[in-house]
Amino acid sequence: MKIYEYASAPNCRRVRMFLAEKGVAMDYVQVDIAKGENLTAEFRTKDVNAKVPVLALEDGSHIAESVAIQRYIEELHPEPPLFGRDAKEKALVEMWNRRADFNMMSNVGMCFQHTSGFFSDRMNVFPEFGEDAGKKALKFFDVLDQHLSDHEFLAGDYFSVADIGMLCSMDFGKVVNLRPDAEEHPHLTRWRKQLSARPSAKA
Amino acid sequence: MKIYEYASAPNCRRVRMFLAEKGVAMDYVQVDIAKGENLTAEFRTKDVNAKVPVLALEDGSHIAESVAIQRYIEELHPEPPLFGRDAKEKALVEMWNRRADFNMMSNVGMCFQHTSGFFSDRMNVFPEFGEDAGKKALKFFDVLDQHLSDHEFLAGDYFSVADIGMLCSMDFGKVVNLRPDAEEHPHLTRWRKQLSARPSAKA
Repeated sequence: MKIYEYASAPNCRRVRMFLAEKGVAMDYVQVDIAKGENLTAEFRTKDVNAKVPVLALEDGSHIAESVAIQRYIEELHPEPPLFGRDAKEKALVEMWNRRADFNMMSNVGMCFQHTSGFFSDRMNVFPEFGEDAGKKALKFFDVLDQHLSDHEFLAGDYFSVADIGMLCSMDFGKVVNLRPDAEEHPHLTRWRKQLSARPSAKA
Repeated sequence: MKIYEYASAPNCRRVRMFLAEKGVAMDYVQVDIAKGENLTAEFRTKDVNAKVPVLALEDGSHIAESVAIQRYIEELHPEPPLFGRDAKEKALVEMWNRRADFNMMSNVGMCFQHTSGFFSDRMNVFPEFGEDAGKKALKFFDVLDQHLSDHEFLAGDYFSVADIGMLCSMDFGKVVNLRPDAEEHPHLTRWRKQLSARPSAKA
């Protein structure tokens, strides 16, 4: 197995951090998305969306989408379980992982793409929409701070793939100056420091 | 258990269709999101995002997010399995379910929200961004048509939650005139007819 990735992309970090928590080694192939190396017809046979990360399997097929790759690894290496241990926990992990995607990654990503012009060679850019998305991410910091005031992790006292997804999404916010404020968001700051101290956060 | 929903919302249909495939009965409470019945402080205790559907459990807690509710039901009622039967199938189902979310539901939803003004009492509207999102959904019809030319369902010969997610997202496109064309997209049209003929599609 090997993973095609662009090291600084948040969804690639999301997979690396997951693999580090599992203690699973992986081979990586760097794809320079800034230069558009992912936009070839050949790369689209690996992922119709031409995105990274993509996992290449031994049988020649590919699995795209960060969370799909994480689930595959979870099946092959169940310990420690990171998608939940019983029905309710699995549902809460899914709920918070989707909030990592829709409330954080989407908003931070849209803010980045529509205000920085990083991909303006390949997409239409609407800066005012991007700024509005950034404000939504900031507003969600308040929601997270409230939730983490009485929960150690997103899904209660259980560290999960949702914490990984939320941390990587939130950390990417720095490229557009979206950062939680230690005084305004003490609980979110506590959670962030705690997660950032895990060796996997450096993966 | 009961589900708070707004019957015509695509993510609510997604859960109803899933429950129908499982043969699981459910109680529903209608929440009129057009009138903003979901925007109360009380409803936000059920879902911090104030969205539907939300599943209320017997223990007084709640699970928000359509796919989180589906996963909970999958755990309680494993037959027929709709999230995949082995590691690779589970990963492919996750991958296609995410494409249902990011390539279809997000684009159709953004097109609807930003061009119709349906929620303009509660969000900033950027019509040109909405139109661009609609074009992305249309472009993804081409990708789906190509994929379904040699796959019966999204994850191969296996009907899954990803087919449900994609159908419900795509069908919602009709509110903004986003429909596949039978001549231009024969394989997508075949798949859509086949899924629409399942009794669960009427749930």
